[in-house]
Amino acid sequence: MDDKDNLTSVLYGVRDLRLEQRPIPEPGINEVLLRIQRVGICGSDVHYLVHGSIGHYIVKEPMVIGHEASGIVVKLGEGVTNLSVGDRVAIEPGVSCRMCQFCKIGKYNLCPGMKFCATPPFDGNLTRYYVHAADFCYKLPEYMTLEEGAMLEPLSVGVHACKRGGVTVGSSVLILGAGPIGLVTLATAKAMGASKIFITDLTEFRLNVAKKMGAFKVIKINKEESDEQAIENVRIELNNELPDVTIDCSGFQQTMKMGIELTKSGGVLTIVGMGASRNVELPLFNALSREVDIRGVFRYANDYQDALSLIASGKVDLSPLVTHHFTIEESLEAFKTAETGIGDPIKVMIHCDKDA
Amino acid sequence: MDDKDNLTSVLYGVRDLRLEQRPIPEPGINEVLLRIQRVGICGSDVHYLVHGSIGHYIVKEPMVIGHEASGIVVKLGEGVTNLSVGDRVAIEPGVSCRMCQFCKIGKYNLCPGMKFCATPPFDGNLTRYYVHAADFCYKLPEYMTLEEGAMLEPLSVGVHACKRGGVTVGSSVLILGAGPIGLVTLATAKAMGASKIFITDLTEFRLNVAKKMGAFKVIKINKEESDEQAIENVRIELNNELPDVTIDCSGFQQTMKMGIELTKSGGVLTIVGMGASRNVELPLFNALSREVDIRGVFRYANDYQDALSLIASGKVDLSPLVTHHFTIEESLEAFKTAETGIGDPIKVMIHCDKDA
Amino acid sequence: MDDKDNLTSVLYGVRDLRLEQRPIPEPGINEVLLRIQRVGICGSDVHYLVHGSIGHYIVKEPMVIGHEASGIVVKLGEGVTNLSVGDRVAIEPGVSCRMCQFCKIGKYNLCPGMKFCATPPFDGNLTRYYVHAADFCYKLPEYMTLEEGAMLEPLSVGVHACKRGGVTVGSSVLILGAGPIGLVTLATAKAMGASKIFITDLTEFRLNVAKKMGAFKVIKINKEESDEQAIENVRIELNNELPDVTIDCSGFQQTMKMGIELTKSGGVLTIVGMGASRNVELPLFNALSREVDIRGVFRYANDYQDALSLIASGKVDLSPLVTHHFTIEESLEAFKTAETGIGDPIKVMIHCDKDA
Amino acid sequence: MDDKDNLTSVLYGVRDLRLEQRPIPEPGINEVLLRIQRVGICGSDVHYLVHGSIGHYIVKEPMVIGHEASGIVVKLGEGVTNLSVGDRVAIEPGVSCRMCQFCKIGKYNLCPGMKFCATPPFDGNLTRYYVHAADFCYKLPEYMTLEEGAMLEPLSVGVHACKRGGVTVGSSVLILGAGPIGLVTLATAKAMGASKIFITDLTEFRLNVAKKMGAFKVIKINKEESDEQAIENVRIELNNELPDVTIDCSGFQQTMKMGIELTKSGGVLTIVGMGASRNVELPLFNALSREVDIRGVFRYANDYQDALSLIASGKVDLSPLVTHHFTIEESLEAFKTAETGIGDPIKVMIHCDKDA
Repeated sequence: MDDKDNLTSVLYGVRDLRLEQRPIPEPGINEVLLRIQRVGICGSDVHYLVHGSIGHYIVKEPMVIGHEASGIVVKLGEGVTNLSVGDRVAIEPGVSCRMCQFCKIGKYNLCPGMKFCATPPFDGNLTRYYVHAADFCYKLPEYMTLEEGAMLEPLSVGVHACKRGGVTVGSSVLILGAGPIGLVTLATAKAMGASKIFITDLTEFRLNVAKKMGAFKVIKINKEESDEQAIENVRIELNNELPDVTIDCSGFQQTMKMGIELTKSGGVLTIVGMGASRNVELPLFNALSREVDIRGVFRYANDYQDALSLIASGKVDLSPLVTHHFTIEESLEAFKTAETGIGDPIKVMIHCDKDA
Repeated sequence: MDDKDNLTSVLYGVRDLRLEQRPIPEPGINEVLLRIQRVGICGSDVHYLVHGSIGHYIVKEPMVIGHEASGIVVKLGEGVTNLSVGDRVAIEPGVSCRMCQFCKIGKYNLCPGMKFCATPPFDGNLTRYYVHAADFCYKLPEYMTLEEGAMLEPLSVGVHACKRGGVTVGSSVLILGAGPIGLVTLATAKAMGASKIFITDLTEFRLNVAKKMGAFKVIKINKEESDEQAIENVRIELNNELPDVTIDCSGFQQTMKMGIELTKSGGVLTIVGMGASRNVELPLFNALSREVDIRGVFRYANDYQDALSLIASGKVDLSPLVTHHFTIEESLEAFKTAETGIGDPIKVMIHCDKDA
Repeated sequence: MDDKDNLTSVLYGVRDLRLEQRPIPEPGINEVLLRIQRVGICGSDVHYLVHGSIGHYIVKEPMVIGHEASGIVVKLGEGVTNLSVGDRVAIEPGVSCRMCQFCKIGKYNLCPGMKFCATPPFDGNLTRYYVHAADFCYKLPEYMTLEEGAMLEPLSVGVHACKRGGVTVGSSVLILGAGPIGLVTLATAKAMGASKIFITDLTEFRLNVAKKMGAFKVIKINKEESDEQAIENVRIELNNELPDVTIDCSGFQQTMKMGIELTKSGGVLTIVGMGASRNVELPLFNALSREVDIRGVFRYANDYQDALSLIASGKVDLSPLVTHHFTIEESLEAFKTAETGIGDPIKVMIHCDKDA
Repeated sequence: MDDKDNLTSVLYGVRDLRLEQRPIPEPGINEVLLRIQRVGICGSDVHYLVHGSIGHYIVKEPMVIGHEASGIVVKLGEGVTNLSVGDRVAIEPGVSCRMCQFCKIGKYNLCPGMKFCATPPFDGNLTRYYVHAADFCYKLPEYMTLEEGAMLEPLSVGVHACKRGGVTVGSSVLILGAGPIGLVTLATAKAMGASKIFITDLTEFRLNVAKKMGAFKVIKINKEESDEQAIENVRIELNNELPDVTIDCSGFQQTMKMGIELTKSGGVLTIVGMGASRNVELPLFNALSREVDIRGVFRYANDYQDALSLIASGKVDLSPLVTHHFTIEESLEAFKTAETGIGDPIKVMIHCDKDA
């Protein structure tokens, strides 16, 4: 390979994101070297930039940012048989240890030895060249774009959330929050046979996108109303027919409270959004005494291929979500757009291949 | 009610279907009187007409035929609160005892006290006026037709089959047989998030319908080829990527064999079709040693509302399946069409309301 | 029947429990008349006596108390086929509507039309003669005592809790609280194959019973220690090997907090105990981000027969739990013992048959 | 290590088992070197000795025999953290690829890259020194014997079979065949809360062991009776109360037929035993139309630790099963005993450590 340009976006600390050249790595056993194509910016990326940490994950050493990526295989490490040079792939950003009890039972997202892109101390992949475990790369069919490949990361969260919620044919679903995760969850729930999908948000703009993506009803929450008022208003919009599954994609105390009160007895409240505060105050007995199960969502496991199939089969179209484009050289500007929300971005996409 | 006309199609024995007047019944506690609207003809109805029995169910007394029905509520029995006069409803044809262990655990289709329309000795509903348990009637939303209401019966079989097969997001599915049940199963699997659906049949005509309904690939089986040839040909069409779920809607020894050999390890072979022969000869160890589970489908339980939601939400459109129409007065002609297959019928629909 | 004595314990209001004669009722269709034998006192009975209400269930009219009962069939109503006169039965105290969606899917404990003994406005069965739905009576094998029959009620809660928690072979289980429910849960978890069962309580006395019933380790909680200290102490006792399943049989904010922090990632926290307070303050994200599921337990459904089999097969012996005995004439004294805890009662049992 | 003696039992072909010295291997990354202690003889070992193959697994090159083993860690390979030198371990004999879709979802027993001891072309562990993947070794608590460690292999099959069958509290279980697998399945089902366990066999001797191990009822099958007679006789012994779960540990056409006819509607027939014949003739529709699921059992996955806990907690005692003992030098004699059945062996155990 003649290319020596491995421009990389590295987070050095709070609000200190730098572009720098790094050596092009070599793929090890069962690994591949990838020319990165697209990297979407996630809320967590922005959070690391602005705060330098998420919970007990703290950026102590310079860390390459980015984890919603697609790439093209340029070199195979020893032992790789599932991929070939030239393959276009989506990159599942977490590589688990494969040997602990969590990996063995199929819940590898809970692996304590997980190495996850752009979660300290592990580097991400907003770079030109990147090495990844071959078995966590998913070959894209020719009719899928590399942008769709990058979007499999948030979509996998939606898939995992819907599976955790037990969404299936005939489920009525209430989604709290119409940000990127709320919207991919909407798309997934619809594709899994949900009968009616209600979705709430504070902003008209996002609800309009939700409407276009097939929400049965969009419900605007008024910032001024109390929790109780908001809950009663949503109850009215639901026509008092509580949903089988509520998926909270916000993770605020208010939305969790709403989820607890508005989910049907015997149903499931799935909470994807992860708030910052340590304690939350909730009417938990309301859920417990009606056997409404409460289930968190931590990333995904065994969901990437399913997310891929949703796009490949045409069941889900995420193109309306990708609203802004930048090159890797414009990384800072890209992050500014994602952070400020100016221009109503949903998903900001960074292009990493200068020749593409 | 002034109407005294309760024209009814009664099966007296082998090839002895008669139209006769019967008294209009009164609804009991928790029952409703319905003016029947549409009744579809099922393969089992034809089987009773031609053979007078199915397995150990034998028509010994005159039995009203028909069980795929919709109607309009004309009178409420005592205690009915879920319906009103004038409601348009789909009729789930089996009324279970509600008190046995099967009813208690939610598998009421296995209730030994089940009273199922047009399964001897219980009367069906190819008639003008019919009484049914109110809790087994499902109110149709206004934008659903009464024909769609009648079609919920076969669709519920498809829903039950897909649930039993564990069809979900990303499932690849192989359906064996493109008759009415194969086609509703196809529609359901697609609506539940299946990624690729392959479907086989002997007849070009049915496969064309399957294609239009969204099958990923239709596979024609050649009557002349041996079982082994057929299996190998289908394997080639699958590109040797075995499906997660195979749903056999034929129930022949040959199709079950194919299902056993062509389902992915750890997958599920669901068998809906019920053949006549007592014993079948199968390579069962092939399935067992690869932990391919084999699951039968007996009617449905808790599936009607989900089937309704598939139609109501627009996820499933069964109108291409209803190919022929008759009035109840033309019952014999309707059955002749269903039996002979002349005119390529898929579903033959009988209209029972003379004023509609 | 010559007997006219139907002495009955009736709760008229707060701390107003009266013994009075009531007419002997007649069994209706699918019902049986029972001569009540044993009735255990439950914490909820005491709560109604002391407070006149539990949550929004308020004793407005005089209500017969008692719901943990066994009896002997003395008369069959029309249609009863599963029982005969003379049968000794355990009485599942809730009779569901059998027709709603919850009943249809097997979650009849969530039925909104549920009629549950001694939950206002429905009468309980601390009486001599009582009528109940025959399908909610479970015939006792001859080698089971009527006291064991009455104990099936709390045991069914333990069975339901363990099923909800997913307890199975190899599960490590932490039970919070060693009251009657904690102890029956311990017995059930052990019988279902749990490998190690840890149990906590504030009182030495109860932990000793737990030890005798086969707890792997009993852990005394010190009332003086802070929540954090208590959690850390239990963590040490667990040797930092977090349990697959935690079952909170107390329902305090403190125990729920402990359950959240000490359950293994991917595990289940089941909460049986129902506290009074509306809101609880909890570190919910700890559970959510580790995919620890939180599940409430509301009574039981389809658990009575399993509870019966645990006793009948000798897997569970609850005799150590029945510590105090009274006759129905001594109802007030019995309740005083249950309320004050004087004499270290675990389960107080009332004998209702004067001839037994 | 000074020891150079690595006496090993090598199968060269049909009835050609030889003892030979082999070099002591070195543990690689994430591997450990073990001094083998006990190796039980399995029916499959005998089958390879007598026939040189099982199905399409053919002994083409000399293969070390044995796969039911325990050992002591004598050397750690690079990266091993879960074990220490001196640890006594049970050895799960199959090492999966950890990267395919089956491994990722937790069904690693279906991994096509599985390397399983003494399944051609992979060597087993009837030897003095043996290297194995550290994550497939399970440390024994001090109060468990190395013989119990070796017995975890067949016990894991029982655990897997009971899990596949859905055995839980209250299950009634019918086990067909009281050989080693039937007996460990009995022990497991009992420990998982099964209410009544019925077990059949042709030989009195085995049924007596089953009786001692806690079978509710043992049922002798008479070789002379027809399939139909046998089924009717067992039905009578069941008092016509069909079991929730049937576990066929024989795998004959006759037992599968019995399992199909005698399992309760909605129940599960699990088939562990794997017969030789390609096709079997069965009344499959009997199972299908009653929604009796049919599930095979292929080895085990995530079951070893649970099997260990059953022994460690005292729930299961397999000592009555180990009837015969030999040293590795007596391998041929040991196999002769296992093959001929002279002396009524259940499990033949080989001791490999000359110093133990």
